[in-house]
Amino acid sequence: FISKLPQIGSTIFTEMTQLAQQFNAINLGQGFPDYPMDTTLIELLNKAMKDGHNQYAHSNGLPLLRERIAEKVKILYNADINADTQITITPGGTYAIFTALTTILRAGDEVIVFEPAYDCYIPTIEMNGAIPICIALQFPDYQISWEEVRSRISSHTRMIIINTPHNPTGSILSESDMQQLIALTRDTKILILSDEVYEHLIYDDKIHQSVLRYPELMERSFACFSFGKTYHCTGWKLGYCLASPFLTNEFRKVHQYNCFSTFAPAQVAIANYMDNKDAYFSLSKLMQHKRDYFVELLKDTPLQPLKANGSFFQCFSYATISEENEKDFAIRLTKEYGVTAIPLAVFYKKATNNQVLRFCFAKKESTLAEAAERLKHLR
Amino acid sequence: FISKLPQIGSTIFTEMTQLAQQFNAINLGQGFPDYPMDTTLIELLNKAMKDGHNQYAHSNGLPLLRERIAEKVKILYNADINADTQITITPGGTYAIFTALTTILRAGDEVIVFEPAYDCYIPTIEMNGAIPICIALQFPDYQISWEEVRSRISSHTRMIIINTPHNPTGSILSESDMQQLIALTRDTKILILSDEVYEHLIYDDKIHQSVLRYPELMERSFACFSFGKTYHCTGWKLGYCLASPFLTNEFRKVHQYNCFSTFAPAQVAIANYMDNKDAYFSLSKLMQHKRDYFVELLKDTPLQPLKANGSFFQCFSYATISEENEKDFAIRLTKEYGVTAIPLAVFYKKATNNQVLRFCFAKKESTLAEAAERLKHLR
Ligand SMILES: CSCCC(=O)C(=O)O
Ligand SMILES: CSCCC(=O)C(=O)O
Repeated sequence: FISKLPQIGSTIFTEMTQLAQQFNAINLGQGFPDYPMDTTLIELLNKAMKDGHNQYAHSNGLPLLRERIAEKVKILYNADINADTQITITPGGTYAIFTALTTILRAGDEVIVFEPAYDCYIPTIEMNGAIPICIALQFPDYQISWEEVRSRISSHTRMIIINTPHNPTGSILSESDMQQLIALTRDTKILILSDEVYEHLIYDDKIHQSVLRYPELMERSFACFSFGKTYHCTGWKLGYCLASPFLTNEFRKVHQYNCFSTFAPAQVAIANYMDNKDAYFSLSKLMQHKRDYFVELLKDTPLQPLKANGSFFQCFSYATISEENEKDFAIRLTKEYGVTAIPLAVFYKKATNNQVLRFCFAKKESTLAEAAERLKHLR
Repeated sequence: FISKLPQIGSTIFTEMTQLAQQFNAINLGQGFPDYPMDTTLIELLNKAMKDGHNQYAHSNGLPLLRERIAEKVKILYNADINADTQITITPGGTYAIFTALTTILRAGDEVIVFEPAYDCYIPTIEMNGAIPICIALQFPDYQISWEEVRSRISSHTRMIIINTPHNPTGSILSESDMQQLIALTRDTKILILSDEVYEHLIYDDKIHQSVLRYPELMERSFACFSFGKTYHCTGWKLGYCLASPFLTNEFRKVHQYNCFSTFAPAQVAIANYMDNKDAYFSLSKLMQHKRDYFVELLKDTPLQPLKANGSFFQCFSYATISEENEKDFAIRLTKEYGVTAIPLAVFYKKATNNQVLRFCFAKKESTLAEAAERLKHLR
């Protein structure tokens, strides 16, 4: 048997989480909270099961949940999204991205991807026979050079993937970025995949630039979201994809034969929980506090924080103490200091070394404090 | 925008369930129970959430659940399956099938599919640029002609999809079928996809012919299973894929970028529930009783039961009263008699009319009785 996918290895998240467990390190690698989720939501899920919501949900998702999402995006982004024809519930944001790419891409299509890029984009593009066109975000602020984007667009360009707040760097897109994107794609056949799983994790009073704010862009976009990131339950694997009625119809053709439908009781629970708007309005404050706390704790170490305004993640440069490549440094940090982080190099197709690691700060203060303690003598 | 998938419509299950709801019909279409699942399992899931199992499970699935599955297949099929390298937990059986096909198929590959075929196989084959080679099961017993299979194998044949107990017909494969399959594929590069989601739903003291019973076959097979069908919770969308270490490694390359991992609390709950072997050993008896009850109830109607030994489904012929095509007849049954069933024609690529409908009997006795009552005056 010859592998169809010889170039694909194991995800960095699985690899580093396994290493963390093996060396009993504090895992600031994979992005998930270590504090408990809201027990109200757990009770709502329990009630949904007891009420008998244990058979197939509608393939597109529970109608009430889709209604709630439509209400939410109206409040947050003033977007008019039809619950029936524009929303599909998915088992997580990654699945929504996989399915959207599989819905659209054909052999030979080009997809513009900004690097560092969340690790599922490029393998999924390649599985579909399409070609990633990689453009590096500009170090150290990780902003997009729209001039470079313009120069890399060709007649084969089928999609541009944007991601704000950005994983792994925590950078965000501005209104001006969105206007450039609109100008570049107007009157073209280029579609947008907008990965917005960190929509509520945005700091320093910045505004999340959802594609939903721009009706013209939304006509040609898939926007992917995650309940797991918002409600502190990444293991629940529930998300959704918003798109125009036409694109949604295409998306559902794949979705119905991929997983067909999503864990029903969680859909009922979250639909009932979404009335509590505080759970997402309060999120930025909670998480910004964690970020600031962690950065402050590391102030006297040689780790230099990079500028970031969003996501679960803060990047640090170790350039003042080492020229090691990032993966070696991350492995050494786990083994010698007992703290696990993610090397940014793995999010680039070409060998890259900016001496930067990504740390997840969605953790209890005591966890962050203990990690900082372990890093105190870092050299 | 030009659709990549113009030929794909909405699944028949969504379509008929919607029609049933619209006409307030008894839904014996889509295959799901209408009686409650075991509250013990619900309580185990509740406990798992309260115990904090709400973050990402391992991408391959919870290790304890994989151990339990390995134990189960040893008991049932005397199969030696390595929990670490041969089992992947998935959000349902359909997802396992989609992912296995996507792992293997390349443009131009041929896949042998027996018709009537569960509705996800052919679209998924085509999405991957591969070609379904359709072979009709022999009406009315729905057995495989292995001679025909032999004659349709070519140098492009990459896979054969088997499904026992069979959806939609309820037919099963015999040991002799398995021996023929072994003989035909020995020393070839042909892989097997074995859809065994109804493994425990087998009647009349028949033995389930899992590929797991045949080590030689298992070397080149993906075997797909479903907890939802076994534990009366189709809406939980939990299943698994067993394969050789090499094929499992390939499968996981796709899986990790498709949904990455599966709803964590249900994995903990089912792992703890699987100690209770009675839940699957008692299933055949429970469901055979429902089948026999339903067939008996319809004895005096013009619906003639076809022979079937497994699955949630019993097919009936209406040939004595109508020559209508199956979909029209199914729609009329919903509208005029208030009972919804699935036309078998939709499971064939070419227009086919054997005047057969599929009824799901995984229902409360009162539901089956009411459906029979409504069908009493069927003409
Ligand atoms: C899907 S596992 C990785 C979780 C995550 O989004 C991250 O750590 O970047
Ligand atoms: C995935 S929805 C269909 C359920 C089922 O297996 C069937 O009705 O055949």
